[in-house]
Amino acid sequence: MDEFRAYRARMNERIGEIDHLGIKRFFRLDSAAYEDGALDAKTKELLGLVASAVLRCNDCIDYHVEQCIAAGWTDDELFDGLNVALVVGGSIVIPHLRHAVESIDIVRAEQP
Amino acid sequence: MDEFRAYRARMNERIGEIDHLGIKRFFRLDSAAYEDGALDAKTKELLGLVASAVLRCNDCIDYHVEQCIAAGWTDDELFDGLNVALVVGGSIVIPHLRHAVESIDIVRAEQP
Amino acid sequence: MDEFRAYRARMNERIGEIDHLGIKRFFRLDSAAYEDGALDAKTKELLGLVASAVLRCNDCIDYHVEQCIAAGWTDDELFDGLNVALVVGGSIVIPHLRHAVESIDIVRAEQP
Amino acid sequence: MDEFRAYRARMNERIGEIDHLGIKRFFRLDSAAYEDGALDAKTKELLGLVASAVLRCNDCIDYHVEQCIAAGWTDDELFDGLNVALVVGGSIVIPHLRHAVESIDIVRAEQP
Amino acid sequence: MDEFRAYRARMNERIGEIDHLGIKRFFRLDSAAYEDGALDAKTKELLGLVASAVLRCNDCIDYHVEQCIAAGWTDDELFDGLNVALVVGGSIVIPHLRHAVESIDIVRAEQP
Amino acid sequence: MDEFRAYRARMNERIGEIDHLGIKRFFRLDSAAYEDGALDAKTKELLGLVASAVLRCNDCIDYHVEQCIAAGWTDDELFDGLNVALVVGGSIVIPHLRHAVESIDIVRAEQP
Repeated sequence: MDEFRAYRARMNERIGEIDHLGIKRFFRLDSAAYEDGALDAKTKELLGLVASAVLRCNDCIDYHVEQCIAAGWTDDELFDGLNVALVVGGSIVIPHLRHAVESIDIVRAEQP
Repeated sequence: MDEFRAYRARMNERIGEIDHLGIKRFFRLDSAAYEDGALDAKTKELLGLVASAVLRCNDCIDYHVEQCIAAGWTDDELFDGLNVALVVGGSIVIPHLRHAVESIDIVRAEQP
Repeated sequence: MDEFRAYRARMNERIGEIDHLGIKRFFRLDSAAYEDGALDAKTKELLGLVASAVLRCNDCIDYHVEQCIAAGWTDDELFDGLNVALVVGGSIVIPHLRHAVESIDIVRAEQP
Repeated sequence: MDEFRAYRARMNERIGEIDHLGIKRFFRLDSAAYEDGALDAKTKELLGLVASAVLRCNDCIDYHVEQCIAAGWTDDELFDGLNVALVVGGSIVIPHLRHAVESIDIVRAEQP
Repeated sequence: MDEFRAYRARMNERIGEIDHLGIKRFFRLDSAAYEDGALDAKTKELLGLVASAVLRCNDCIDYHVEQCIAAGWTDDELFDGLNVALVVGGSIVIPHLRHAVESIDIVRAEQP
Repeated sequence: MDEFRAYRARMNERIGEIDHLGIKRFFRLDSAAYEDGALDAKTKELLGLVASAVLRCNDCIDYHVEQCIAAGWTDDELFDGLNVALVVGGSIVIPHLRHAVESIDIVRAEQP
């Protein structure tokens, strides 16, 4: 997880250096999508986690697991959300369910 | 929308007649995934809508639009959830955003 | 179904007129993939149907439904194969399961 | 094609009325992505067409077919680009190749 | 392969501990889908392999490679099935074809 | 990158040994799709890169990054093409954008 965080931070900085207006705006739009609006930020992070799970993107799952835990979702709530992803996306989601559960355990273990 | 509902009902009945144990259990598991649990049914329907949008399935969108409105989500909340789907899934989601908004308008117009 | 067959035939003819060597070779490779080899043609058509279902392509499902029935698969066998597709691909496959079952019924009704 | 254009225009207007800042910005970012930059607009439209074909989105294909023809790509160049999409995306792209060729023919027939 | 098996076993045990009824039922439904029915288990494992390949899931490919070899499919039959996956799914499947062939070789080498 | 190249070369050789006519023809068709035709090879490699990015295949991205750089595309042009992929495919493409930028930097650093 630490390795992934360092890689993500390093490459996001490198992508920032590219200074492509469209890419920069996309990154801002992506951040803004999870801020409080008609839905609160907490709900949106859970939407982001389930969307990442059905689209089977482990890096995206890790990012939203961290945000979901910071936003106050309990493990049982996260597992219940991941169950929706599993039913919608099928057994092909199972490897990503394993990854999500592992990441939830790692992030919880880091909490003080 | 009415045509789709009739088709869905007719074909679900036909699939029931097939009497395949695995398929029947899958349909029950699918229904159960959206019932109150650690997360409430209302939240889960929104997860189902966003998952359907990023996976680009109009029939699934229509089903969850109906359920989301019945569960009490406002239009602004649905649009805010669909914005998460748009950012996660990209411009390829736009035709399904159009479809979702059209279906929301139709279902609202049917309300007494 | 008849409309789809006529459209498919007309557009395949139009694509043939384009006379693009790569496209023509791809179409031949596609046909050849379902001929008897280490696996027999019947088994391969079922593989094609399940692959089409998990990739959620109704036109491809229709094509393979016709071929599977011509190859001698029974309805129960087709439904059992579609159940694998449903479990692998999740509830997002359900609209395509409906379509597949409808097409199976149509093709069977055409049989003398 | 005319029906699709009218629907697209009507729903885009409806989505504009929603007045969701994130959705509006996404639509602007989407338009901006195809403007002249390090790559010229003509090249980018072809990229958009091929991306739409491998992601199997007919509405997106129709949009980019129109833009590609307006940008000056010949039919042979479009077919050569679609061949790349076919090889990358496989036979599951064939129904969308049919659709793309049909749309190319329709848009060409409209030209004065 | 051994590392993957250990990880899969460990995480499946961890997911079992979660004790989420929906997730547990999904896992049972997934196992049941590959048991003898109208189609025999051997045929279903091949369907699972091809579905995994077109959906581009290496972990799923590894699982079904093991089951397919245990069920008695020969290498030539597996390659012929993977060829269907390649034609249906396109060149984007090639990295997963490489992975599948490597896993087939590993599992065969383990046989007594 | 070197490790990936060695693995790819080794497994392509292994797949060649399998001597499956369909697979061999697919590999030739895949190579031929990127040769000069109505579109030049340089343009086609960029199409291949963008198609690989929206389909989220890192191995395919690496292959086309190498070919695109060999064909003479500048970094700014590659980033502009990847921006199209990002807008079409959404934030789910971001991990693959990171990978693509990293691979571009590695391949450039190898140039004399």
